[in-house]
Amino acid sequence: METIEIVGLVAATLTTSAFVPQVYKTWKTRSTRDISFTMYSAFLLGTILWLFYGIHHNSLAIILANGITGILVVVMLLLKIRHK
Amino acid sequence: METIEIVGLVAATLTTSAFVPQVYKTWKTRSTRDISFTMYSAFLLGTILWLFYGIHHNSLAIILANGITGILVVVMLLLKIRHK
Repeated sequence: METIEIVGLVAATLTTSAFVPQVYKTWKTRSTRDISFTMYSAFLLGTILWLFYGIHHNSLAIILANGITGILVVVMLLLKIRHK
Repeated sequence: METIEIVGLVAATLTTSAFVPQVYKTWKTRSTRDISFTMYSAFLLGTILWLFYGIHHNSLAIILANGITGILVVVMLLLKIRHK
């Protein structure tokens, strides 16, 4: 595999897994006052469209990255709704 | 332009501009307690690697999306540092 493709994979892993510490923090503190509902709503819509794009192009990387991000973003939205 | 490429452009626009309402909210409230510093640090590193990837592949879409996201993420990190 070319070095630049490894860079791309690490990039995708980082921008996907970045949501894990936020979910963990919010799960622990049950505090969501500073979290923007609009941000996570727009992000969810974006990841759903990325999923269509990835499925159309048979890109496992795009499907996986956005599938996982989508789940984490949904958890954030549920936490935001649950703990106003 | 193919419909699926428009879907990709809308997806990129959404996952990039999603950070705008979060930056606006944090800028207005000056409150960052619920924001994960680790999330935004990982996201920044990810967008920097995506920039290298986009530059290597001459992809204006990847460069633009991650350049703008990177700036918004840096603003969030600065707000988090400034307003503990």
